[in-house]
Amino acid sequence: MDMAASLLACGVDPERAVLFQQSQVSEHAELSWILGCLTSMPRLRHLPQWKMKSKLKNEGSVGLYTYPVLQAADILLYKSTHVPVGEDQVQHLELAQDLARIFNNRYGDLFPEPRALLSSTQKVKSLRDPSAKMSKSDPQTMATITITDSADDIALKIRRAVTDFTSEVTFDPQTRPGVSNLVTIHAAVAQITVEAAVQQARGLDTGGYKKLVSDAVVQRLTPIGQELQRLRSDPAHLQEVLLQGTRRARELAAPVLREVQQRVGFC
Amino acid sequence: MDMAASLLACGVDPERAVLFQQSQVSEHAELSWILGCLTSMPRLRHLPQWKMKSKLKNEGSVGLYTYPVLQAADILLYKSTHVPVGEDQVQHLELAQDLARIFNNRYGDLFPEPRALLSSTQKVKSLRDPSAKMSKSDPQTMATITITDSADDIALKIRRAVTDFTSEVTFDPQTRPGVSNLVTIHAAVAQITVEAAVQQARGLDTGGYKKLVSDAVVQRLTPIGQELQRLRSDPAHLQEVLLQGTRRARELAAPVLREVQQRVGFC
Repeated sequence: MDMAASLLACGVDPERAVLFQQSQVSEHAELSWILGCLTSMPRLRHLPQWKMKSKLKNEGSVGLYTYPVLQAADILLYKSTHVPVGEDQVQHLELAQDLARIFNNRYGDLFPEPRALLSSTQKVKSLRDPSAKMSKSDPQTMATITITDSADDIALKIRRAVTDFTSEVTFDPQTRPGVSNLVTIHAAVAQITVEAAVQQARGLDTGGYKKLVSDAVVQRLTPIGQELQRLRSDPAHLQEVLLQGTRRARELAAPVLREVQQRVGFC
Repeated sequence: MDMAASLLACGVDPERAVLFQQSQVSEHAELSWILGCLTSMPRLRHLPQWKMKSKLKNEGSVGLYTYPVLQAADILLYKSTHVPVGEDQVQHLELAQDLARIFNNRYGDLFPEPRALLSSTQKVKSLRDPSAKMSKSDPQTMATITITDSADDIALKIRRAVTDFTSEVTFDPQTRPGVSNLVTIHAAVAQITVEAAVQQARGLDTGGYKKLVSDAVVQRLTPIGQELQRLRSDPAHLQEVLLQGTRRARELAAPVLREVQQRVGFC
Protein backbone atom coordinates (compact mmCIF):
# COMPACT_ATOMS: atom_id res chain seq x y z
CA MET A 1 0.00 0.00 0.00
CA ASP A 2 2.66 2.39 1.06
CA MET A 3 4.64 1.74 -2.07
CA ALA A 4 1.70 2.13 -4.43
CA ALA A 5 0.76 5.30 -2.60
CA SER A 6 4.22 6.75 -2.79
CA LEU A 7 4.67 5.82 -6.44
CA LEU A 8 1.44 7.61 -7.26
CA ALA A 9 2.31 10.51 -4.98
CA CYS A 10 5.61 10.98 -6.79
CA GLY A 11 4.03 10.69 -10.19
CA VAL A 12 6.18 7.66 -11.10
CA ASP A 13 4.88 5.86 -14.16
CA PRO A 14 4.34 2.27 -13.01
CA GLU A 15 5.30 1.12 -16.51
CA ARG A 16 8.74 2.52 -15.87
CA ALA A 17 9.06 1.42 -12.25
CA VAL A 18 10.88 -1.85 -11.55
CA LEU A 19 9.16 -3.79 -8.76
CA PHE A 20 11.14 -6.58 -7.12
CA GLN A 21 11.86 -8.29 -3.80
CA GLN A 22 15.14 -6.96 -2.45
CA SER A 23 15.97 -10.36 -0.90
CA GLN A 24 15.98 -11.92 -4.38
CA VAL A 25 18.78 -9.64 -5.59
CA SER A 26 21.92 -10.71 -3.74
CA GLU A 27 23.83 -7.59 -4.80
CA HIS A 28 22.06 -5.58 -2.06
CA ALA A 29 23.58 -7.64 0.75
CA GLU A 30 26.95 -7.73 -1.00
CA LEU A 31 27.19 -3.97 -1.50
CA SER A 32 25.91 -3.45 2.02
CA TRP A 33 28.83 -5.48 3.38
CA ILE A 34 31.34 -3.36 1.46
CA LEU A 35 29.69 -0.08 2.50
CA GLY A 36 29.74 -1.25 6.12
CA CYS A 37 33.53 -1.37 5.87
CA LEU A 38 33.44 2.35 4.98
CA THR A 39 31.06 3.30 7.82
CA SER A 40 32.28 4.28 11.27
CA MET A 41 30.49 2.98 14.35
CA PRO A 42 29.51 6.42 15.75
CA ARG A 43 28.03 7.39 12.36
CA LEU A 44 25.25 4.85 12.93
CA ARG A 45 25.00 5.24 16.69
CA HIS A 46 23.87 8.85 16.36
CA LEU A 47 21.04 8.23 13.89
CA PRO A 48 17.76 9.19 15.58
CA GLN A 49 15.82 6.12 14.39
CA TRP A 50 18.41 3.82 16.02
CA LYS A 51 18.35 5.87 19.21
CA MET A 52 14.59 5.61 19.39
CA LYS A 53 14.09 2.00 18.29
CA SER A 54 17.01 0.52 20.21
CA LYS A 55 15.54 2.03 23.38
CA LEU A 56 12.18 0.36 22.66
CA LYS A 57 13.73 -2.98 21.76
CA ASN A 58 16.27 -3.10 24.58
CA GLU A 59 19.42 -2.41 22.51
CA GLY A 60 18.16 -3.90 19.24
CA SER A 61 19.95 -6.27 16.90
CA VAL A 62 23.00 -5.80 14.71
CA GLY A 63 20.57 -5.92 11.78
CA LEU A 64 18.62 -2.95 13.13
CA TYR A 65 21.85 -1.05 13.78
CA THR A 66 23.27 -1.63 10.31
CA TYR A 67 19.93 -1.25 8.50
CA PRO A 68 20.73 2.30 7.29
CA VAL A 69 23.82 0.86 5.54
CA LEU A 70 21.59 -1.63 3.71
CA GLN A 71 19.33 1.28 2.75
CA ALA A 72 22.37 3.12 1.38
CA ALA A 73 23.23 0.00 -0.65
CA ASP A 74 19.63 -0.16 -1.95
CA ILE A 75 20.04 3.40 -3.21
CA LEU A 76 23.62 3.38 -4.51
CA LEU A 77 23.36 -0.01 -6.23
CA TYR A 78 21.26 1.65 -8.95
CA LYS A 79 23.32 4.86 -8.99
CA SER A 80 20.14 6.61 -7.91
CA THR A 81 20.07 10.38 -8.28
CA HIS A 82 16.81 11.12 -6.44
CA VAL A 83 15.06 9.25 -3.63
CA PRO A 84 11.48 9.91 -2.47
CA VAL A 85 11.70 10.00 1.32
CA GLY A 86 9.70 11.12 4.29
CA GLU A 87 11.16 13.64 6.74
CA ASP A 88 12.10 10.80 9.10
CA GLN A 89 14.38 9.27 6.47
CA VAL A 90 16.37 12.39 5.59
CA GLN A 91 19.25 11.49 7.89
CA HIS A 92 19.43 7.98 6.48
CA LEU A 93 19.66 9.47 3.01
CA GLU A 94 22.49 11.67 4.28
CA LEU A 95 24.33 8.48 5.24
CA ALA A 96 23.92 7.25 1.65
CA GLN A 97 25.28 10.59 0.42
CA ASP A 98 28.26 10.34 2.79
CA LEU A 99 28.99 6.77 1.70
CA ALA A 100 28.83 7.79 -1.98
CA ARG A 101 31.33 10.56 -1.23
CA ILE A 102 33.61 8.33 0.85
CA PHE A 103 33.61 5.63 -1.84
CA ASN A 104 34.21 8.13 -4.66
CA ASN A 105 37.09 9.77 -2.77
CA ARG A 106 38.77 6.51 -1.99
CA TYR A 107 38.16 4.48 -5.15
CA GLY A 108 37.37 7.06 -7.84
CA ASP A 109 34.07 8.59 -8.92
CA LEU A 110 31.34 6.02 -9.32
CA PHE A 111 28.20 7.02 -7.38
CA PRO A 112 26.12 10.18 -7.82
CA GLU A 113 25.20 11.74 -4.48
CA PRO A 114 21.51 10.90 -4.24
CA ARG A 115 19.18 13.80 -3.43
CA ALA A 116 15.98 13.73 -1.39
CA LEU A 117 12.64 14.13 -3.11
CA LEU A 118 10.49 15.40 -0.28
CA SER A 119 6.77 15.30 -0.83
CA SER A 120 5.08 18.70 -0.80
CA THR A 121 2.31 17.08 1.25
CA GLN A 122 2.49 17.65 4.98
CA LYS A 123 2.52 14.57 7.13
CA VAL A 124 -0.99 13.13 7.28
CA LYS A 125 -2.18 12.87 10.87
CA SER A 126 -4.43 10.42 12.68
CA LEU A 127 -8.16 11.15 12.27
CA ARG A 128 -8.66 10.38 15.98
CA ASP A 129 -5.64 12.30 17.32
CA PRO A 130 -4.27 14.95 14.97
CA SER A 131 -1.11 15.29 17.09
CA ALA A 132 -0.01 11.76 16.05
CA LYS A 133 0.76 10.64 12.50
CA MET A 134 -1.66 8.45 10.56
CA SER A 135 -0.27 4.94 10.72
CA LYS A 136 -1.14 1.50 9.34
CA SER A 137 -0.18 0.01 12.70
CA ASP A 138 -2.57 2.22 14.72
CA PRO A 139 -4.87 -0.12 16.70
CA GLN A 140 -7.81 2.34 16.31
CA THR A 141 -9.21 1.51 12.88
CA MET A 142 -11.11 4.80 12.81
CA ALA A 143 -7.82 6.71 12.88
CA THR A 144 -6.55 5.54 9.52
CA ILE A 145 -7.87 5.40 5.95
CA THR A 146 -6.56 2.43 3.99
CA ILE A 147 -6.55 2.00 0.24
CA THR A 148 -8.94 -0.94 0.53
CA ASP A 149 -11.58 0.94 2.58
CA SER A 150 -15.04 1.10 1.02
CA ALA A 151 -16.60 4.47 0.15
CA ASP A 152 -18.89 4.08 3.19
CA ASP A 153 -15.94 3.36 5.52
CA ILE A 154 -14.12 6.41 4.22
CA ALA A 155 -17.18 8.65 4.63
CA LEU A 156 -17.74 7.37 8.17
CA LYS A 157 -14.11 7.81 9.23
CA ILE A 158 -13.95 11.36 7.92
CA ARG A 159 -17.34 12.29 9.37
CA ARG A 160 -16.07 11.16 12.78
CA ALA A 161 -12.67 12.81 12.37
CA VAL A 162 -11.67 14.92 15.41
CA THR A 163 -11.91 18.66 14.64
CA ASP A 164 -12.73 21.62 16.90
CA PHE A 165 -15.62 23.96 17.71
CA THR A 166 -14.95 26.55 15.02
CA SER A 167 -17.13 25.88 12.02
CA GLU A 168 -15.13 27.87 9.44
CA VAL A 169 -12.41 25.94 7.56
CA THR A 170 -8.89 27.36 7.85
CA PHE A 171 -5.40 25.92 7.56
CA ASP A 172 -3.41 26.36 10.74
CA PRO A 173 -1.77 23.10 11.85
CA GLN A 174 -0.53 24.65 15.13
CA THR A 175 -3.81 25.90 16.57
CA ARG A 176 -6.30 23.84 14.51
CA PRO A 177 -4.60 20.48 13.84
CA GLY A 178 -7.79 18.50 13.18
CA VAL A 179 -9.37 20.62 10.46
CA SER A 180 -5.92 21.42 8.99
CA ASN A 181 -5.31 17.69 8.65
CA LEU A 182 -8.49 17.43 6.58
CA VAL A 183 -7.22 20.27 4.39
CA THR A 184 -3.90 18.44 3.97
CA ILE A 185 -5.69 15.23 2.96
CA HIS A 186 -8.00 17.12 0.61
CA ALA A 187 -5.12 18.92 -1.11
CA ALA A 188 -3.13 15.68 -1.43
CA VAL A 189 -5.89 13.54 -2.93
CA ALA A 190 -7.24 16.32 -5.19
CA GLN A 191 -3.66 17.20 -6.16
CA ILE A 192 -4.22 20.89 -5.46
CA THR A 193 -2.46 23.35 -3.18
CA VAL A 194 -3.50 23.86 0.42
CA GLU A 195 -4.64 27.36 -0.52
CA ALA A 196 -6.90 26.02 -3.28
CA ALA A 197 -8.37 23.49 -0.86
CA VAL A 198 -9.19 26.20 1.68
CA GLN A 199 -10.75 28.25 -1.11
CA GLN A 200 -13.02 25.33 -2.09
CA ALA A 201 -14.15 25.16 1.55
CA ARG A 202 -15.34 28.75 1.55
CA GLY A 203 -18.95 28.96 2.72
CA LEU A 204 -18.91 25.42 4.09
CA ASP A 205 -18.93 24.56 7.78
CA THR A 206 -16.78 21.68 9.06
CA GLY A 207 -19.57 19.15 8.46
CA GLY A 208 -20.05 20.27 4.86
CA TYR A 209 -16.30 20.28 4.29
CA LYS A 210 -15.97 16.73 5.64
CA LYS A 211 -18.44 15.62 2.95
CA LEU A 212 -16.36 17.37 0.29
CA VAL A 213 -13.12 15.81 1.60
CA SER A 214 -14.58 12.32 1.80
CA ASP A 215 -15.89 12.60 -1.77
CA ALA A 216 -12.42 13.67 -2.92
CA VAL A 217 -10.76 10.79 -1.06
CA VAL A 218 -13.27 8.27 -2.43
CA GLN A 219 -12.78 9.62 -5.95
CA ARG A 220 -9.03 9.28 -5.59
CA LEU A 221 -8.92 5.88 -3.89
CA THR A 222 -11.73 4.03 -5.66
CA PRO A 223 -9.85 3.37 -8.92
CA ILE A 224 -6.73 2.45 -6.93
CA GLY A 225 -8.74 0.06 -4.76
CA GLN A 226 -10.36 -1.46 -7.84
CA GLU A 227 -7.00 -1.91 -9.52
CA LEU A 228 -5.71 -3.50 -6.31
CA GLN A 229 -8.62 -5.96 -6.31
CA ARG A 230 -8.00 -6.79 -9.93
CA LEU A 231 -4.30 -7.37 -9.33
CA ARG A 232 -4.90 -9.46 -6.23
CA SER A 233 -7.22 -11.74 -8.16
CA ASP A 234 -4.37 -12.52 -10.55
CA PRO A 235 -1.46 -13.82 -8.46
CA ALA A 236 0.21 -15.36 -11.52
CA HIS A 237 0.48 -11.90 -13.04
CA LEU A 238 1.97 -10.51 -9.80
CA GLN A 239 4.51 -13.32 -9.69
CA GLU A 240 5.43 -12.52 -13.27
CA VAL A 241 5.79 -8.79 -12.53
CA LEU A 242 8.12 -9.59 -9.62
CA LEU A 243 10.08 -12.09 -11.68
CA GLN A 244 10.57 -9.62 -14.52
CA GLY A 245 11.39 -6.93 -11.98
CA THR A 246 13.97 -9.12 -10.26
CA ARG A 247 15.55 -9.90 -13.62
CA ARG A 248 15.70 -6.23 -14.56
CA ALA A 249 17.01 -5.19 -11.12
CA ARG A 250 19.79 -7.75 -11.41
CA GLU A 251 20.71 -6.51 -14.88
CA LEU A 252 21.10 -3.04 -13.42
CA ALA A 253 22.76 -4.05 -10.16
CA ALA A 254 25.26 -6.68 -11.31
CA PRO A 255 27.58 -4.41 -13.33
CA VAL A 256 27.60 -1.77 -10.56
CA LEU A 257 28.53 -4.34 -7.93
CA ARG A 258 31.17 -5.82 -10.25
CA GLU A 259 32.71 -2.37 -10.66
CA VAL A 260 32.70 -1.84 -6.88
CA GLN A 261 34.29 -5.23 -6.29
CA GLN A 262 37.01 -4.50 -8.82
CA ARG A 263 37.79 -1.12 -7.32
CA VAL A 264 38.02 -2.37 -3.75
CA GLY A 265 40.17 -5.29 -4.93
CA PHE A 266 37.84 -8.27 -4.63
CA CYS A 267 38.57 -9.40 -8.18
CA MET B 1 50.66 -19.52 2.75
CA ASP B 2 48.69 -19.67 5.90
CA MET B 3 45.95 -21.62 4.21
CA ALA B 4 48.29 -24.13 2.60
CA ALA B 5 50.05 -24.55 5.92
CA SER B 6 46.86 -25.05 7.86
CA LEU B 7 45.42 -27.45 5.29
CA LEU B 8 48.57 -29.52 5.58
CA ALA B 9 48.66 -29.19 9.35
CA CYS B 10 45.10 -30.47 9.60
CA GLY B 11 45.77 -33.33 7.24
CA VAL B 12 43.11 -32.08 4.79
CA ASP B 13 43.36 -33.78 1.43
CA PRO B 14 43.62 -30.91 -1.09
CA GLU B 15 41.72 -33.08 -3.59
CA ARG B 16 38.75 -32.90 -1.26
CA ALA B 17 39.16 -29.27 -0.22
CA VAL B 18 37.13 -26.66 -2.13
CA LEU B 19 39.20 -23.50 -2.67
CA PHE B 20 37.32 -20.34 -3.65
CA GLN B 21 37.16 -16.59 -3.16
CA GLN B 22 34.49 -15.79 -0.60
CA SER B 23 33.60 -12.53 -2.40
CA GLN B 24 32.61 -14.53 -5.51
CA VAL B 25 29.91 -16.43 -3.60
CA SER B 26 27.17 -13.93 -2.80
CA GLU B 27 25.47 -16.29 -0.33
CA HIS B 28 28.06 -15.37 2.33
CA ALA B 29 26.98 -11.73 2.44
CA GLU B 30 23.31 -12.71 2.23
CA LEU B 31 23.43 -15.17 5.12
CA SER B 32 25.54 -12.71 7.08
CA TRP B 33 22.79 -10.12 6.79
CA ILE B 34 20.19 -12.55 8.13
CA LEU B 35 22.42 -13.72 10.99
CA GLY B 36 23.07 -10.08 11.91
CA CYS B 37 19.36 -9.74 12.55
CA LEU B 38 19.68 -12.55 15.14
CA THR B 39 22.75 -11.04 16.83
CA SER B 40 22.50 -8.60 19.72
CA MET B 41 24.77 -5.57 19.83
CA PRO B 42 26.46 -6.44 23.16
CA ARG B 43 27.25 -9.96 21.87
CA LEU B 44 29.75 -8.42 19.41
CA ARG B 45 30.90 -5.58 21.64
CA HIS B 46 32.37 -7.98 24.17
CA LEU B 47 34.45 -10.03 21.74
CA PRO B 48 38.12 -9.57 22.64
CA GLN B 49 39.35 -9.09 19.04
CA TRP B 50 36.95 -6.15 18.59
CA LYS B 51 37.99 -4.66 21.92
CA MET B 52 41.65 -4.84 20.95
CA LYS B 53 41.42 -3.81 17.30
CA SER B 54 38.84 -1.05 17.75
CA LYS B 55 41.19 0.52 20.30
CA LEU B 56 44.07 0.45 17.80
CA LYS B 57 41.95 1.76 14.93
CA ASN B 58 40.10 4.47 16.84
CA GLU B 59 36.69 2.75 17.07
CA GLY B 60 36.95 0.70 13.88
CA SER B 61 34.38 0.34 11.12
CA VAL B 62 30.99 -1.33 11.07
CA GLY B 63 32.65 -3.99 8.89
CA LEU B 64 35.21 -4.76 11.59
CA TYR B 65 32.48 -4.87 14.22
CA THR B 66 30.24 -7.24 12.27
CA TYR B 67 33.09 -9.35 10.88
CA PRO B 68 32.46 -12.22 13.35
CA VAL B 69 28.91 -12.47 11.97
CA LEU B 70 30.33 -12.88 8.46
CA GLN B 71 32.66 -15.57 9.84
CA ALA B 72 29.63 -17.33 11.33
CA ALA B 73 27.95 -17.16 7.92
CA ASP B 74 31.11 -18.59 6.29
CA ILE B 75 30.87 -21.56 8.65
CA LEU B 76 27.11 -22.18 8.79
CA LEU B 77 26.54 -21.74 5.03
CA TYR B 78 28.15 -25.15 4.50
CA LYS B 79 26.56 -26.72 7.60
CA SER B 80 30.10 -27.19 8.88
CA THR B 81 30.57 -29.59 11.77
CA HIS B 82 34.24 -28.88 12.57
CA VAL B 83 36.33 -25.76 12.08
CA PRO B 84 40.12 -25.61 12.40
CA VAL B 85 40.81 -22.50 14.50
CA GLY B 86 43.58 -20.92 16.52
CA GLU B 87 43.03 -20.11 20.19
CA ASP B 88 42.30 -16.48 19.29
CA GLN B 89 39.29 -17.53 17.20
CA VAL B 90 37.57 -19.75 19.76
CA GLN B 91 35.19 -16.98 20.88
CA HIS B 92 34.26 -16.18 17.31
CA LEU B 93 33.42 -19.84 16.77
CA GLU B 94 31.26 -19.67 19.90
CA LEU B 95 29.30 -16.89 18.20
CA ALA B 96 28.72 -19.21 15.23
CA GLN B 97 27.53 -21.90 17.66
CA ASP B 98 25.19 -19.44 19.37
CA LEU B 99 23.77 -18.27 16.04
CA ALA B 100 23.21 -21.89 14.92
CA ARG B 101 21.32 -22.50 18.17
CA ILE B 102 19.31 -19.26 17.95
CA PHE B 103 18.35 -19.97 14.33
CA ASN B 104 17.44 -23.60 15.06
CA ASN B 105 15.29 -22.60 18.05
CA ARG B 106 13.46 -19.92 16.16
CA TYR B 107 13.04 -21.50 12.71
CA GLY B 108 13.53 -25.25 13.26
CA ASP B 109 16.65 -27.39 13.20
CA LEU B 110 18.89 -26.63 10.25
CA PHE B 111 22.48 -25.99 11.35
CA PRO B 112 24.78 -28.35 13.24
CA GLU B 113 26.64 -26.57 16.04
CA PRO B 114 30.17 -26.38 14.63
CA ARG B 115 32.98 -27.60 16.89
CA ALA B 116 36.51 -26.26 17.15
CA LEU B 117 39.41 -28.31 15.80
CA LEU B 118 42.29 -26.90 17.81
CA SER B 119 45.78 -27.74 16.59
CA SER B 120 47.88 -29.79 19.00
CA THR B 121 50.82 -27.53 18.07
CA GLN B 122 51.59 -24.75 20.51
CA LYS B 123 51.64 -21.27 19.08
CA VAL B 124 54.88 -20.74 17.16
CA LYS B 125 56.82 -17.77 18.52
CA SER B 126 59.04 -15.19 16.89
CA LEU B 127 62.64 -16.35 16.42
CA ARG B 128 63.85 -12.91 17.57
CA ASP B 129 61.49 -12.49 20.53
CA PRO B 130 59.99 -15.74 21.84
CA SER B 131 57.47 -13.80 23.93
CA ALA B 132 55.71 -12.63 20.73
CA LYS B 133 54.04 -14.86 18.17
CA MET B 134 55.66 -15.55 14.80
CA SER B 135 53.89 -13.35 12.31
CA LYS B 136 53.99 -12.70 8.56
CA SER B 137 53.60 -9.00 9.28
CA ASP B 138 56.64 -8.81 11.61
CA PRO B 139 58.98 -6.15 10.15
CA GLN B 140 62.04 -8.14 11.30
CA THR B 141 62.51 -10.68 8.53
CA MET B 142 64.79 -12.77 10.78
CA ALA B 143 61.88 -13.39 13.15
CA THR B 144 59.76 -15.39 10.74
CA ILE B 145 60.23 -18.42 8.50
CA THR B 146 58.14 -18.27 5.34
CA ILE B 147 57.25 -21.15 3.06
CA THR B 148 59.24 -19.57 0.24
CA ASP B 149 62.48 -19.19 2.23
CA SER B 150 65.49 -20.97 0.76
CA ALA B 151 67.26 -23.71 2.75
CA ASP B 152 70.09 -21.25 3.43
CA ASP B 153 67.67 -18.59 4.72
CA ILE B 154 66.02 -21.10 7.02
CA ALA B 155 69.34 -22.36 8.36
CA LEU B 156 70.52 -18.79 9.00
CA LYS B 157 67.30 -17.72 10.74
CA ILE B 158 67.32 -20.75 13.05
CA ARG B 159 71.05 -20.42 13.75
CA ARG B 160 70.43 -16.82 14.85
CA ALA B 161 67.25 -17.67 16.81
CA VAL B 162 67.25 -16.18 20.32
CA THR B 163 67.79 -18.90 22.96
CA ASP B 164 69.49 -18.72 26.39
CA PHE B 165 72.79 -19.64 28.07
CA THR B 166 71.91 -23.22 29.01
CA SER B 167 73.24 -25.58 26.38
CA GLU B 168 71.04 -28.58 27.16
CA VAL B 169 67.72 -28.80 25.26
CA THR B 170 64.57 -28.94 27.40
CA PHE B 171 60.93 -28.00 26.87
CA ASP B 172 59.79 -25.36 29.31
CA PRO B 173 57.98 -22.49 27.55
CA GLN B 174 57.74 -20.46 30.79
CA THR B 175 61.39 -20.30 31.81
CA ARG B 176 63.08 -21.19 28.49
CA PRO B 177 60.81 -19.73 25.76
CA GLY B 178 63.49 -19.56 23.04
CA VAL B 179 64.69 -23.16 23.04
CA SER B 180 61.15 -24.42 23.75
CA ASN B 181 59.96 -22.59 20.62
CA LEU B 182 62.56 -24.54 18.61
CA VAL B 183 61.24 -27.77 20.14
CA THR B 184 57.67 -26.74 19.18
CA ILE B 185 58.75 -26.01 15.60
CA HIS B 186 60.72 -29.25 15.42
CA ALA B 187 57.82 -31.36 16.71
CA ALA B 188 55.37 -29.64 14.32
CA VAL B 189 57.43 -30.02 11.14
CA ALA B 190 58.61 -33.58 11.96
CA GLN B 191 55.05 -34.45 13.05
CA ILE B 192 56.24 -35.95 16.31
CA THR B 193 55.35 -35.19 19.94
CA VAL B 194 57.23 -32.58 21.94
CA GLU B 195 58.61 -35.40 24.11
CA ALA B 196 59.99 -37.24 21.06
CA ALA B 197 61.58 -34.01 19.85
CA VAL B 198 63.33 -33.45 23.20
CA GLN B 199 64.50 -37.06 23.11
CA GLN B 200 66.08 -36.55 19.67
CA ALA B 201 67.93 -33.56 21.11
CA ARG B 202 69.59 -35.66 23.80
CA GLY B 203 73.37 -35.21 23.76
CA LEU B 204 73.16 -32.12 21.54
CA ASP B 205 73.89 -28.59 22.70
CA THR B 206 71.71 -25.73 21.49
CA GLY B 207 73.94 -25.16 18.45
CA GLY B 208 73.75 -28.80 17.41
CA TYR B 209 70.00 -28.88 17.99
CA LYS B 210 69.51 -25.79 15.84
CA LYS B 211 71.15 -27.69 12.98
CA LEU B 212 68.80 -30.62 13.54
CA VAL B 213 65.73 -28.32 13.68
CA SER B 214 66.68 -26.41 10.56
CA ASP B 215 67.23 -29.67 8.66
CA ALA B 216 63.76 -30.83 9.75
CA VAL B 217 62.18 -27.50 8.71
CA VAL B 218 63.96 -27.56 5.34
CA GLN B 219 62.91 -31.16 4.76
CA ARG B 220 59.31 -30.25 5.52
CA LEU B 221 59.12 -26.97 3.63
CA THR B 222 61.19 -27.77 0.54
CA PRO B 223 58.55 -29.88 -1.23
CA ILE B 224 55.86 -27.38 -0.26
CA GLY B 225 57.98 -24.50 -1.58
CA GLN B 226 58.64 -26.40 -4.81
CA GLU B 227 54.95 -27.15 -5.26
CA LEU B 228 54.23 -23.48 -4.61
CA GLN B 229 56.72 -22.47 -7.32
CA ARG B 230 55.18 -24.93 -9.73
CA LEU B 231 51.66 -23.68 -9.04
CA ARG B 232 52.67 -20.03 -9.31
CA SER B 233 54.16 -20.65 -12.72
CA ASP B 234 50.77 -21.86 -13.93
CA PRO B 235 48.25 -19.04 -13.23
CA ALA B 236 45.76 -20.51 -15.69
CA HIS B 237 45.59 -23.64 -13.55
CA LEU B 238 45.07 -21.56 -10.39
CA GLN B 239 42.28 -19.59 -12.07
CA GLU B 240 40.67 -22.86 -13.05
CA VAL B 241 40.95 -24.27 -9.51
CA LEU B 242 39.28 -21.14 -8.13
CA LEU B 243 36.60 -21.21 -10.83
CA GLN B 244 35.78 -24.85 -10.12
CA GLY B 245 35.90 -24.14 -6.41
CA THR B 246 33.53 -21.18 -6.73
CA ARG B 247 31.13 -23.30 -8.76
CA ARG B 248 31.23 -26.09 -6.18
CA ALA B 249 30.89 -23.68 -3.24
CA ARG B 250 27.81 -22.14 -4.87
CA GLU B 251 26.29 -25.58 -5.42
CA LEU B 252 26.68 -26.26 -1.72
CA ALA B 253 25.70 -22.80 -0.47
CA ALA B 254 22.69 -21.99 -2.64
CA PRO B 255 20.27 -24.62 -1.29
CA VAL B 256 21.22 -23.80 2.32
CA LEU B 257 20.60 -20.08 1.80
CA ARG B 258 17.35 -20.84 -0.01
CA GLU B 259 16.19 -22.92 2.97
CA VAL B 260 17.15 -20.11 5.35
CA GLN B 261 15.32 -17.53 3.23
CA GLN B 262 12.21 -19.70 3.16
CA ARG B 263 12.23 -20.23 6.90
CA VAL B 264 12.67 -16.57 7.77
CA GLY B 265 9.96 -15.67 5.25
CA PHE B 266 11.91 -14.06 2.41
CA CYS B 267 10.25 -16.24 -0.19
